[in-house]
Amino acid sequence: MVEAKDTGYESTTLESFGRQAVMQTLEAELSIQGPGTVSIRFPFQSRFTQQNGYIHAGIVATILDSACGYAAFTLMPQGADVLTVEFKVNLLRPAKGDHFAAKATVVKPGKTISVVEAALYSSEYGEEKPVVTMTATIMTMLQSSKIKE
Amino acid sequence: MVEAKDTGYESTTLESFGRQAVMQTLEAELSIQGPGTVSIRFPFQSRFTQQNGYIHAGIVATILDSACGYAAFTLMPQGADVLTVEFKVNLLRPAKGDHFAAKATVVKPGKTISVVEAALYSSEYGEEKPVVTMTATIMTMLQSSKIKE
Amino acid sequence: MVEAKDTGYESTTLESFGRQAVMQTLEAELSIQGPGTVSIRFPFQSRFTQQNGYIHAGIVATILDSACGYAAFTLMPQGADVLTVEFKVNLLRPAKGDHFAAKATVVKPGKTISVVEAALYSSEYGEEKPVVTMTATIMTMLQSSKIKE
Amino acid sequence: MVEAKDTGYESTTLESFGRQAVMQTLEAELSIQGPGTVSIRFPFQSRFTQQNGYIHAGIVATILDSACGYAAFTLMPQGADVLTVEFKVNLLRPAKGDHFAAKATVVKPGKTISVVEAALYSSEYGEEKPVVTMTATIMTMLQSSKIKE
Repeated sequence: MVEAKDTGYESTTLESFGRQAVMQTLEAELSIQGPGTVSIRFPFQSRFTQQNGYIHAGIVATILDSACGYAAFTLMPQGADVLTVEFKVNLLRPAKGDHFAAKATVVKPGKTISVVEAALYSSEYGEEKPVVTMTATIMTMLQSSKIKE
Repeated sequence: MVEAKDTGYESTTLESFGRQAVMQTLEAELSIQGPGTVSIRFPFQSRFTQQNGYIHAGIVATILDSACGYAAFTLMPQGADVLTVEFKVNLLRPAKGDHFAAKATVVKPGKTISVVEAALYSSEYGEEKPVVTMTATIMTMLQSSKIKE
Repeated sequence: MVEAKDTGYESTTLESFGRQAVMQTLEAELSIQGPGTVSIRFPFQSRFTQQNGYIHAGIVATILDSACGYAAFTLMPQGADVLTVEFKVNLLRPAKGDHFAAKATVVKPGKTISVVEAALYSSEYGEEKPVVTMTATIMTMLQSSKIKE
Repeated sequence: MVEAKDTGYESTTLESFGRQAVMQTLEAELSIQGPGTVSIRFPFQSRFTQQNGYIHAGIVATILDSACGYAAFTLMPQGADVLTVEFKVNLLRPAKGDHFAAKATVVKPGKTISVVEAALYSSEYGEEKPVVTMTATIMTMLQSSKIKE
């Protein structure tokens, strides 16, 4: 339904994701489903847990934010950079499980501002029961605006 | 202004913080300023950066969420556990700097629900210019409600 | 999928909605689709517009908040009252049109806290293009907790 | 501290506010404290209440959103229009009282995106106890971008 502006969006997106050191630290893998939709998978690591042994909500937010950002990035013109303006998460269930996957979809692409929704699923609850949901506002930074800002 | 319900709140809070493995991974240190106000300091680590070399927004959110949760926790009765219901962040500046500090204050304590506001500051911009702001809704989980829920 | 705890939830919900004077002022009508899902329709009124002649975002939020609250209310036990803890809206398109409908669904019912998602649609854009989206955190207030709080 | 770009910002802001029909309906009055800070006062009206006789949270959000938008507008260049991208409210206390005042301050002005924080106070609780808090993301719409978008 949505069309990519940059025909090489898949390699551009994977390349930018590859430069996020935190994604390697979290052993996260990006899959691009199509223009405007991506998912990121990552395994449980005990060094990222909170006081009850579940993955910390902020680590979940790290993955969801990257998912939202790169979902928006797939729709941006060549040479653009992606910037998160704000995000909000609702924590529905404890982040239990061996594996997690965040799925993000652009609900409103825009020239400057895009709105993206995402949810995290886990091996513990399956695809029927989201663990955390995110709404994020993502900004397209064109080369020219980066210089001027 | 706000009074603690648990006179031993400092040791209880430090003890729970000590059980958050992710805080050790982030080399984060908690300081309790008083009932309802805490701060968490942490250093730059390149393994937690995004594509431009700044600390990833989600890692910042991890620290801010723990700061909000433990600010609320200092006001909870003995034996309670703390649960984040939701949070929202606004990203005001790139998370540059060698050192960062999150400061969180309970703006509305409640028996069940507390609202906490926090901001992250960095060695790059100083205390006048927050890097990221968070508003979080934190829930008090009493032993009894944990069993029933 | 979700089951109502109060078999008389439809009349209880309509009765509470009927006591919201603002809903009459906005000429709003509630429809209950089933446990956990409601919609509210309302017409354009020029006295509720912003500077460009569209319905003000806060008026849209008024309808969406009531939709979220009553979606959660359909799942509450008899005698409970409903309280919004917080909500967030993303404004995707100008609120143009002769008629509007907000649709709200509980995504995570809880004994104390429920999370509800809603979207506003308009006669201008149809059901494919939401005008505004909301995520709301709704609290169940039991008679006993109202006294104690 | 912040400087206005449009020396005639006060009259421009009051003029735009005057075109918001909903503000007249709510009997709301705007005061401009200086560049980046405004307040809006309005009286209780029973036709805008929820089921317990308090002002509906969405009506409060209407006032807070206009306060945030016009706080940002005071800092925009001549000819710009103001657009709310998203907002989030936390409801701390019931909106009781005869009179209410929303106070909004820009926490981060930006060429394209500004972040504004606001709080509602009431004659019931005074200035020590906010009734509702809002964080809003506001966009500057330049004449040129309005044509292109």
